[in-house]
Amino acid sequence: MKKAGILGGGQLGRMLLQSAANYPVETFVMENDLNCPAAHLCHHFTKGDITSFDDVYNFGKGLDVLTIEIESVNEDALEKLEAEGVKIYPKPAALRIIKNKILQKQFYKTNEVPTSDFIITQNAAELGANASFLPAVHKLATGGYDGRGVQVIKKAEDVALGFNAPSVLEKMVHIKKEIAIMIAVSPKGETAIYPPVDMVFDPKLNLLCYQISPADIPEKVFWKAEAIALRVVKELKSPGIFAVELFVDIDDNVLVNETAPRVHNSGHHTIEGNYSSQFDMLWRVLLDYPLGNTDPILPAAIVNLLGSEGFNGPALYEGLNEILTMDNVFVHLYGKTHTKPGRKMGHITILSSEKQELLHKANQILHTLLVKSG
Amino acid sequence: MKKAGILGGGQLGRMLLQSAANYPVETFVMENDLNCPAAHLCHHFTKGDITSFDDVYNFGKGLDVLTIEIESVNEDALEKLEAEGVKIYPKPAALRIIKNKILQKQFYKTNEVPTSDFIITQNAAELGANASFLPAVHKLATGGYDGRGVQVIKKAEDVALGFNAPSVLEKMVHIKKEIAIMIAVSPKGETAIYPPVDMVFDPKLNLLCYQISPADIPEKVFWKAEAIALRVVKELKSPGIFAVELFVDIDDNVLVNETAPRVHNSGHHTIEGNYSSQFDMLWRVLLDYPLGNTDPILPAAIVNLLGSEGFNGPALYEGLNEILTMDNVFVHLYGKTHTKPGRKMGHITILSSEKQELLHKANQILHTLLVKSG
Repeated sequence: MKKAGILGGGQLGRMLLQSAANYPVETFVMENDLNCPAAHLCHHFTKGDITSFDDVYNFGKGLDVLTIEIESVNEDALEKLEAEGVKIYPKPAALRIIKNKILQKQFYKTNEVPTSDFIITQNAAELGANASFLPAVHKLATGGYDGRGVQVIKKAEDVALGFNAPSVLEKMVHIKKEIAIMIAVSPKGETAIYPPVDMVFDPKLNLLCYQISPADIPEKVFWKAEAIALRVVKELKSPGIFAVELFVDIDDNVLVNETAPRVHNSGHHTIEGNYSSQFDMLWRVLLDYPLGNTDPILPAAIVNLLGSEGFNGPALYEGLNEILTMDNVFVHLYGKTHTKPGRKMGHITILSSEKQELLHKANQILHTLLVKSG
Repeated sequence: MKKAGILGGGQLGRMLLQSAANYPVETFVMENDLNCPAAHLCHHFTKGDITSFDDVYNFGKGLDVLTIEIESVNEDALEKLEAEGVKIYPKPAALRIIKNKILQKQFYKTNEVPTSDFIITQNAAELGANASFLPAVHKLATGGYDGRGVQVIKKAEDVALGFNAPSVLEKMVHIKKEIAIMIAVSPKGETAIYPPVDMVFDPKLNLLCYQISPADIPEKVFWKAEAIALRVVKELKSPGIFAVELFVDIDDNVLVNETAPRVHNSGHHTIEGNYSSQFDMLWRVLLDYPLGNTDPILPAAIVNLLGSEGFNGPALYEGLNEILTMDNVFVHLYGKTHTKPGRKMGHITILSSEKQELLHKANQILHTLLVKSG
């Protein structure tokens, strides 16, 4: 059996391990928290710091293949491991580009991938000097995640909200909708592309609120989006699975927002909604099996289950019984014992051939299922 | 989080734990083999003997709920645990009936559940005295599993093949087909019934060869089968999930063959083929959530992957790459490091709305994917 490691032990690792049990693979996870969602589902758990060179290097030595479930890992250690023959998917070179938002934007520009205009700002002063570029979104080059490290700056008076550190200032796009495309790349360079999904965000938390697959977009937008997503992964030159998040603007231009080199929230519906889920697909890549079938089984929606405002403590799921009586609804709770406002505690998938049913149930779930504490 | 225990750590436990990760539950497994398929997927693994009173009792103490993935467990310990307030699903009283094939047959007779005629034989002499009852199937009262402890006795000269121990001699039925129905029973006594499946057996190993869902049966047979399966579980008076295996004879009579009080091979297709899988459903029962939706998403077939004849050693999967290129096909390998002839090493599920495609792919898989050793 091949030995496969995962850096990070959150819900993505958890779902990856649920899927791993279909294959002959010995699994290893490293994460600082002994009680993280993935800790008990692997063959071997190592308590360690995924940002530490030594911890990552020692964890990876002797493994056949190593992947990540979060970008904030020590890529120097990954490069050394790669040089020593461990397969690292995504490749450290691709990860370096993606985890730094400045490098990522420059990568799009260099490779003629459509993306919003941007200016690089090294500090608050440089941000202040570019007030004419507003309205824009200021993003920290490194360290942002799930809405942190991202700041909308509409007008000159808001400049103080920006970051006094290397960042990218992205021209505000007149967004009609946001879509995402998951793509897998095999070690041989073959690709498998999932249908685009519509993403609907909570404007306050900047977290995915719900998502519908396949996206409701004109054919022309569909082809543009697929071509752009494919171009991104081809130029990243790395096996793995990638989530390419895209803006469709009011003129139906398609622009890359950002790319994640891993399984992703925008692919969770594939567990039930597609023949090969994003988690199954990544195992096929890691173990060098043929890529899976990305065809949808049925249209799907997912709702993220976030910790309710005002609750911080041991998680209690209010309305769970009602949700579990709903037909064609799949509950995924991530086993996190503690909730806090906006924390991702689970997701719910809905399958239906009727879009109205997907929307109706998504809204019903959003208002019924709450994570509180007691 | 509730604490839930599973006695036995084979593939059924493995798949149960893959599904457990969707729910807030702390999982415990007891099994003698540290490297069993389920060992690494639970929160707490206990090495122990599931037939030992002390081991089962000590394992179950302090748990909220306990289930089984194999019948050969110590039911005295389960009874004591039940008396002390641990929920045991299936209930020990139901398990006692089912795990003894004599009691099981008498249970059907007492409750007017159609089943084949039978005679109880305590030893070889009693078997020999009933040659006029042949052709028949001789089944050991206890200890049989997956084809062991079952002997076809066609004529008087074959009587020596029978068991010199308490057994049941079942009149041979002129079988047109074998079907199975999975039914869940909630702690409140509600039931959820899955559509019947057609089972096709390997006559040599007496193991499930492939299976198609839903079964291709006339409406009248369908209603009879459902009514009989429901009657069985109502009379067993126990929460849990049950597989009721049925014969359809050449006159379209429906007879119960036997019942298993647990997740079962004949329900594996429900992982991908039905909205709530048999594993998801059992968690709903164990955690006292509402029962799930048994509706099929698409018709399904499964093929059991058995260790090839002549190979005994570390498992090698021949043809796996070819199978993984097939569309609408789902591979489940059980992570058993050693293969031996006839050992259940995995199963493959096929989804398709076309029955011909199910059959074609099932046969292709049977002849392509082989478990050898190297």
